[in-house]
Amino acid sequence: MAEIGIGLMGLGVVGSGVAQVLLQKGTALSQQAGITLALRRVLVRNPHKPRPLSLPEGLLTTNPDDLLNNPQCPIIVEVMGGEEPATTYIRRALEAGKHVVTANKEVIAKHGPHLFRLAQQRQVYLLFEASVGGGIPLIGPLQRDLLANDILSIRAIINGTTNYILTRMARDGVDYHTALQEAQAKGYAEPDPTNDVEGIDAVYKLAVLALLAFRTPVPLPQIYREGITHLQAKDFRYAHELGYEIKLLAIGRKENGTVQARVHPAFVPSHTLLAKVDGAYNAIEVQGDLVGRVVFHGLGAGPAPTSSAVVNDILTIARSVKAQARPLSWVNLHTALPVRPLHDLTTQYYLRLNVADRPGVLAQIAHILGDLSISIASVIQKDADPSAGTAEIVIMTHPAREGAMQEALGLIRRLPVVREVSNLIRVEAE
Amino acid sequence: MAEIGIGLMGLGVVGSGVAQVLLQKGTALSQQAGITLALRRVLVRNPHKPRPLSLPEGLLTTNPDDLLNNPQCPIIVEVMGGEEPATTYIRRALEAGKHVVTANKEVIAKHGPHLFRLAQQRQVYLLFEASVGGGIPLIGPLQRDLLANDILSIRAIINGTTNYILTRMARDGVDYHTALQEAQAKGYAEPDPTNDVEGIDAVYKLAVLALLAFRTPVPLPQIYREGITHLQAKDFRYAHELGYEIKLLAIGRKENGTVQARVHPAFVPSHTLLAKVDGAYNAIEVQGDLVGRVVFHGLGAGPAPTSSAVVNDILTIARSVKAQARPLSWVNLHTALPVRPLHDLTTQYYLRLNVADRPGVLAQIAHILGDLSISIASVIQKDADPSAGTAEIVIMTHPAREGAMQEALGLIRRLPVVREVSNLIRVEAE
Repeated sequence: MAEIGIGLMGLGVVGSGVAQVLLQKGTALSQQAGITLALRRVLVRNPHKPRPLSLPEGLLTTNPDDLLNNPQCPIIVEVMGGEEPATTYIRRALEAGKHVVTANKEVIAKHGPHLFRLAQQRQVYLLFEASVGGGIPLIGPLQRDLLANDILSIRAIINGTTNYILTRMARDGVDYHTALQEAQAKGYAEPDPTNDVEGIDAVYKLAVLALLAFRTPVPLPQIYREGITHLQAKDFRYAHELGYEIKLLAIGRKENGTVQARVHPAFVPSHTLLAKVDGAYNAIEVQGDLVGRVVFHGLGAGPAPTSSAVVNDILTIARSVKAQARPLSWVNLHTALPVRPLHDLTTQYYLRLNVADRPGVLAQIAHILGDLSISIASVIQKDADPSAGTAEIVIMTHPAREGAMQEALGLIRRLPVVREVSNLIRVEAE
Repeated sequence: MAEIGIGLMGLGVVGSGVAQVLLQKGTALSQQAGITLALRRVLVRNPHKPRPLSLPEGLLTTNPDDLLNNPQCPIIVEVMGGEEPATTYIRRALEAGKHVVTANKEVIAKHGPHLFRLAQQRQVYLLFEASVGGGIPLIGPLQRDLLANDILSIRAIINGTTNYILTRMARDGVDYHTALQEAQAKGYAEPDPTNDVEGIDAVYKLAVLALLAFRTPVPLPQIYREGITHLQAKDFRYAHELGYEIKLLAIGRKENGTVQARVHPAFVPSHTLLAKVDGAYNAIEVQGDLVGRVVFHGLGAGPAPTSSAVVNDILTIARSVKAQARPLSWVNLHTALPVRPLHDLTTQYYLRLNVADRPGVLAQIAHILGDLSISIASVIQKDADPSAGTAEIVIMTHPAREGAMQEALGLIRRLPVVREVSNLIRVEAE
C-alpha cells in the first residue's frame, strides 16, 4: 500500500492524543483511507521532556524545517495553539504545497481568509474541524452538507469551561468564584481562565463559524464580547423564576446583507434545547432557509474528541490524495458583509437594580424607560433589606433597541434613588 | 459556465420541493458548485395532473427512458419512494454510469450493499442524505466526519410521526387514538399510519444507519420491531412518576463483533437529551470511541428540509464533476457481522400488570421473577378497582436478560391471580 507522511507540530494534550490515535489505530485507519498514514516527524519545544506516550525513535525534532522542508511530510498537522509561530508555520506549509490540518481557532479567526486563498492557489487542503466544538462534526457539515441553504443564524454554546461554571451556578446555587475554582480543580478551566470566562475563546470560534456560515470575514474587534464574571447566584434564581436558564451564547445572524455577531450571557427559555445543554457539553444551532434549525451537540473539548476531528481531517486528505482528486472544500468567501453595531440590536432585556426602598422609585425608572420607548413586560420587586433601606427590582422588558437601553441605563444610574445597576442580561427568544 | 443535467424522478411533495429549490435558487447554487445545475427531465405518472409548481415547458415525461437513456441527464434524482420501480431505476441509472441521489430509505435498507458495489464499479456517486433524518446532516457526517471513530452505538428518534403522537400523549395525557387522529389532521401522519406507528419506517432508517455506522448489512427481518399502538396514557403517567419519558427508539449497538438492532418504545431518563426531543423533531445520538456521544437534532421530514439534503447531494456531485474528481464516498462494507437475537439483550424493564386485588399476589410474581434471576428495583401498586376486585402493579426491574424476561412473562400470564400483562417496556439507560 502507498504511504502518506504526516508532520505533527505540537505534542501537548491534543498532539499526544493525535499521535496516540495514529499509532494505536493506524492499521484500521490506513485501511479506511486506502493508503498508509505514516507519522514521520513531531515538532516539540523540549525533546527531553518525559512524556507518557512512547513514540518510535527519531521522530522528535525542535526544528520546524525538519517538517516544513521535508518532502516526506506532505501533510502538516498543527496543534500547538496560539497565533504565533503557528500562523507562520501554516503559511509556510501551504506555500510549500503541503496540506494542512489545524485545531487552531485563533489562527483561522484572525488569518482564515488569507490562508484559504493561499490553500486554493496551491491546490491543497486547509482543514480545521477541530477548531470549533471538539469532535462534533460541524465545520464539515457547514462546508458541505448545508450548502444548499442560506444560513440565517448561528446560536451556540461553544465554550465548555463557562458552560460548566454556569451549570454549577444554576443547579447548585454556588457563586461564580466557587464554581470557577471547582472547574480549575477538575481541569475544565485553566489556571488563568481569562480566555474562557471573558468570552475570548468563544469570539474566535464564532468568527470561524461566521466564515463558513455567512462566507464573510468578521473582524474580531467588531464582535461584541461580554464574559460571565459579573453573573451572580441571584441572577440564576430570578432566571428560573421567570422560566429561563442563563447561558454564554455566541450568536451570529445575517439580515439584509449585514451580519450581527456577539458573545454574551443570555436568558434562554428553559424548554429550549440550548437551555438543556449542561456541563462541559457544547451545542451549535444552525438555522438555514431550507433545513430549519439543526442542532449539533457533543463534547467540545478533550484529547479524544479533538483527536477524532484532527485524524478525520487527515483521513479526508489521505483519501483525496489516494484518489488523485483535487481538493473540493475550500472556503470561498463573498465580499465582506458589513457588521451591524450592537446598538442596532433589538431584543428583550433582564435588568436587575438595587434601589432605595421607598415609594415612587419604580415610577421614576419606568418613566425613563417609557420615554425611550422601552416597554416593561414584568417586574419583580423583593429582597428588601430594611437595615440598608434598599430593595431589589428586576425588570423584564419587551423587545427594545440596545441603543435606547444603554441610554436608559445611563439615566437610571444617575437617579439618586438607584444604588446600583446590578446586571443587564439580554434575552435570546426561541 | 459548464452545465450538468439532472433527471428528476417523482414530483410528489419531496420532488416538488426539490424542483422548486432548483428553479428558485438555481443561480446561487450554480455559483456555489462552479457549474450550472440544469433540471432537464422530470418523470411523473400523470403529466396532466394540475400542480402548484409551474415548470418550464417540455420537462415532464411518463417514460423513464427519457431520463435513464438520456446523456443529457448524468445525475438522476429519485424521490418517488417505495421499493419498485425505484430500485430498478436506480440500478439502471448506475449501470448507465449516472450519478444517483435518492431519498429512498426502503431501497437503501433493502438493496444498499448491492447498489453500493455497483456505484463503486461504475465510479459514480450514490448519495442518500435525505433517506434518514430529513435535512439533518447525518449520512455525510457518518460517512466522512466520524471515520476516525469506531462507532459503538446509535440511538435515535427517527420517526417524526410517532414522536409527535408520543409527545401529545406524554404532555396532555390524551390516548393513542386521539393523538393519532390529531397527527393525521395536521398532516403529520398518513391516512394509513401503519408504516410509522408499527415502526417499519424506523426499521428501514436504522438499517441505513447501521450500514454506515457499523459497515455491515443488517437483514431487515433480524431487526426487532415493536410499534407504539399498545401504549396507554397510564404508561406515560407511571413513566413520569419514575423519572422517564417514553420514546420510540431505534437502537443499534456493536459488541464483540456482533450487532444488535431494534426498534421499540423505551423508557428514557427524563434528564437526557433524547427525552427532550419533542413533537415532529428527530434526534440521532452516535457514540464513537474517540468522539464520545454526539447528537444531531432537527426536523426529520417536510419538503424544505428534505430538499435541503437532496439538493446538497446534487451539489456534492456537481462540484466533484466540475473538479474532475473521482467519487470519494462509497460505503465500503465489511464482512457481514452476525446479528444478536433479542433474547440475548440485557436491559431493565418496566412491567405493568393487572392482577386480582388480594394478598400474596406480588409474592407469586416476585417468586417467578426471582427464580429466573430477574431482580426487582421498585414496585408501584395502586389504582385498585374495588368493583372489579383488581389492582395494578408496576414493576421496574434491575438489568435482566430478555430471554429470562419472556420466560417469566409466560409463567406470570398463567398465574390465576393475573388478569393481564398490560405492558412490557424496555428501559434505555443513559
